Amino acid sequence: MAKNHKPALGIDLGGTNMQIGVVSPDFKLLGSAKRKTKAAEGTSAVLDRIVEGALEAIANAKLSIRDIACLGLGAPGAVDPDQGVVLEAVNLRWKNTPAAELLAKKLGVPVFLDNDVNVAVYGENRLGAGKGSRHMLGVWVGTGIGGGLILNGELFYGHFMTAGEIGHMIALPNNPPGHRSLEHNCSRTAVVDQIVRLIKSNRKSRITELCNGDFDDIKSKMVAKAFEDGDEVTREVVLHAAELLGIEIAGVVTLLSLERVVLGGGLTEAIGKPFVDLVDKSVKNFAFPDRCKNVKIVASQLEDNAGVYGAAMIALERLERK
Amino acid sequence: MAKNHKPALGIDLGGTNMQIGVVSPDFKLLGSAKRKTKAAEGTSAVLDRIVEGALEAIANAKLSIRDIACLGLGAPGAVDPDQGVVLEAVNLRWKNTPAAELLAKKLGVPVFLDNDVNVAVYGENRLGAGKGSRHMLGVWVGTGIGGGLILNGELFYGHFMTAGEIGHMIALPNNPPGHRSLEHNCSRTAVVDQIVRLIKSNRKSRITELCNGDFDDIKSKMVAKAFEDGDEVTREVVLHAAELLGIEIAGVVTLLSLERVVLGGGLTEAIGKPFVDLVDKSVKNFAFPDRCKNVKIVASQLEDNAGVYGAAMIALERLERK
Repeated sequence: MAKNHKPALGIDLGGTNMQIGVVSPDFKLLGSAKRKTKAAEGTSAVLDRIVEGALEAIANAKLSIRDIACLGLGAPGAVDPDQGVVLEAVNLRWKNTPAAELLAKKLGVPVFLDNDVNVAVYGENRLGAGKGSRHMLGVWVGTGIGGGLILNGELFYGHFMTAGEIGHMIALPNNPPGHRSLEHNCSRTAVVDQIVRLIKSNRKSRITELCNGDFDDIKSKMVAKAFEDGDEVTREVVLHAAELLGIEIAGVVTLLSLERVVLGGGLTEAIGKPFVDLVDKSVKNFAFPDRCKNVKIVASQLEDNAGVYGAAMIALERLERK
Repeated sequence: MAKNHKPALGIDLGGTNMQIGVVSPDFKLLGSAKRKTKAAEGTSAVLDRIVEGALEAIANAKLSIRDIACLGLGAPGAVDPDQGVVLEAVNLRWKNTPAAELLAKKLGVPVFLDNDVNVAVYGENRLGAGKGSRHMLGVWVGTGIGGGLILNGELFYGHFMTAGEIGHMIALPNNPPGHRSLEHNCSRTAVVDQIVRLIKSNRKSRITELCNGDFDDIKSKMVAKAFEDGDEVTREVVLHAAELLGIEIAGVVTLLSLERVVLGGGLTEAIGKPFVDLVDKSVKNFAFPDRCKNVKIVASQLEDNAGVYGAAMIALERLERK
């Protein structure tokens, strides 16, 4: 078929919010919109909000739906991209939901579906910090730890379509149940829990002041601020988490002989370069064999927009192949 | 080109021994031979022994070198299969050795090179316990722990051509240096070390009698015998090793969403089904998400011949593609 010159919609659908953008074939963001997800209101209501947000983003781009080539949707959970079905997304309360078909009917454009972390990793690989890498891992450190793999230049799904879940690999087998996985030890949630535990065991920390004593409301930015200020408790916990994260990433680099690892997510973005450097040092200490120590560990470049860009790009590429 | 109907030579080159076989295009072993590797005598002497062994295997098959389509060589170390170069093989004392070209000159047939574990995993995937699996891991538990990956139906090499090294992933980050990797904890060598340590701390074990008190000469078969007889020390150590191996494999299954894992190597073969069952149970306990618990954990079928078959098959397939 002839090369497409129309823009695509890219949608990053989260459990709480959705971000929507219109992306041109030369990767400019022409317009955008945001909506709450409100999964509790049911699938149909969520899809209606996607459509609403999409139309707003199109209007912001001064376009109409007839100008849109296709839509890419990144959904949080296990998806079957070939069938366009969300197999299971706990946050959305979706199971075997044919989201691509349902949205295509509502909007009248072809819809392509993938996992939310996969679309962000894809965006970074095609346009951001992973550009040019044929074999890379993306790790998103935030509330949880998500991951996605590019192998031989393409997203890798595996047999059960769930590949990339580095956050659920066991990092500390000798820990008690519920405290063994990478996510249990190195996510923002885990880092905050460990800081709070130390504070409650009578260690002094800048965090107490930064969160006004509300330990349920500690954000990545507060952790980053305390880290930057040299707060001892925070540095201790973050150093430990970054080292363990690096050990686990080194294992994946050893297993897959990766060229590059892109680090993203709220905690990585908040602390920035010092965090990436700590993880890098640990990866280089533990990767095998020596030639694998040449792997590049880099920060994501597209940050919040990685999902929107990636979803639009996946849709445009799949449309070309159809 | 026309389909090849000639047999291939398959060579499994180890640090100590080499096994050589003539394999027909319909995968029958027509003739075989063995030689010592004797790497200390230098590359040229090793290559001469490969040629000698190859000619003996051809004679045993009642064929001549003119009947041979090509040769596949599995070498222990990092290799570049496209260039036919052994990048680094510590056991052989080879570095950047153009083994494929050197052997092709000596024998007058096309030579294809790969890593020794890769060729065995390939053999199992095409002909043995991994038949029909598009995404699988092979783990060989013996003196060390080797591994190889089939992704999207093909051997996966990664950027530095070293993919599959599961034995060098860190399994226990909190252990002291030298005791952290999977190989350091779950290889036959590690299992024997742990048994001997327990015996030396005054635990009674059948192993003492089975090895006639020579703790430097404990073989996989002795471990298997003591395990079978219910020896408490041996069971304790093997159960622990199998569980940790299962946890690490579960991580790889979680990361790559694998359909199948083939277990081979001296220790696996010696203990057999009970060992595979222990690993299987641990993998099912720790794989994520639930759909990944459907992964099949199976014992290798080609055992000692996996390398010879795999090397010959790789050579035949690459010849077809040329």
